[in-house]
Amino acid sequence: MLTHDELGAARDRAASVLAETGIVLTPLELANIEVADFGLSRLDEIGLQIVVYVNTERVCAKELVLFPRQTCPEHRHPPIGASPGKEETFRCRSGVVYLYVEGEPAATPACRPPASGGDAFTVRHEVELRPGEQHTIAPNTLHWFQAGDEGAVVSEFSTTSTDEADVFTDTRIGRATVIREGR
Amino acid sequence: MLTHDELGAARDRAASVLAETGIVLTPLELANIEVADFGLSRLDEIGLQIVVYVNTERVCAKELVLFPRQTCPEHRHPPIGASPGKEETFRCRSGVVYLYVEGEPAATPACRPPASGGDAFTVRHEVELRPGEQHTIAPNTLHWFQAGDEGAVVSEFSTTSTDEADVFTDTRIGRATVIREGR
Repeated sequence: MLTHDELGAARDRAASVLAETGIVLTPLELANIEVADFGLSRLDEIGLQIVVYVNTERVCAKELVLFPRQTCPEHRHPPIGASPGKEETFRCRSGVVYLYVEGEPAATPACRPPASGGDAFTVRHEVELRPGEQHTIAPNTLHWFQAGDEGAVVSEFSTTSTDEADVFTDTRIGRATVIREGR
Repeated sequence: MLTHDELGAARDRAASVLAETGIVLTPLELANIEVADFGLSRLDEIGLQIVVYVNTERVCAKELVLFPRQTCPEHRHPPIGASPGKEETFRCRSGVVYLYVEGEPAATPACRPPASGGDAFTVRHEVELRPGEQHTIAPNTLHWFQAGDEGAVVSEFSTTSTDEADVFTDTRIGRATVIREGR
């Protein structure tokens, strides 16, 4: 749950990061930057700012903005009907992002899961992405990611995005951001 | 047909344009920028520089660099097997690009087809894209595009790219770029 002020501040901050990265948005896109707190009300720690460029029945493209050390919690994109689930490629545009996926756990990981994350961060294979570097995540495989100390901008190229179908390891998480009335 | 020198010069120029736009590429991507002359050996007039970020069985993402007034000739992406054909979204990142698609012809178009293009430019509905603006092209519909006087960088988000299946209105066009031996 976010207050209107928190939402506005996160939008402004994300807009500023995108501008610094040289990414131009329309006024409508700027006004509609999505701020996801995953229902946990700890946006600085667990959250994500998103610009959806396009999301058709076949293709989706987004920019993701992560503030310093902000984490997108562990989840997977399950099969839906005839689709094997969402396939996504993350390409780092600025900053550094650490992506954790299924595979051999990192011996000395660059990130710690957020405090109180508990056992909801189970995959520990680390992929470090710096500007120009990218990684493709197979459908229905677990992943989470965290920005480095400077934050990060990440482009996502994927099949159709159906956020409401995402399965989070932390069962407290709801993908929809709820705005609290009043300030 | 391009000479090695022409290919190298176009790559260097495209790399410089992308850097000015704030887009970071890996050394491998820089070395492999695709230069398409569509077999016409008139690259300055009809051509396209391409960086393919990802092209899986489901999703493709590219950056397209157009030099000033350079034109990508008219074509469509036909159905292939069970697929209705490639769907693509063009998003302008820098400069201006004029996209011509099926529909009401522009009364005063911003571009002329290249000289000697003859009758190979048949669709004339104009969509002007400035940085942050985008347009989605339905599968199997004709389109061509030309950069403005400053050139343009355009991100393309699409379904799988199978260039060899593209159908060009100008039947002289072959999609593969041929490099001439010697200099």
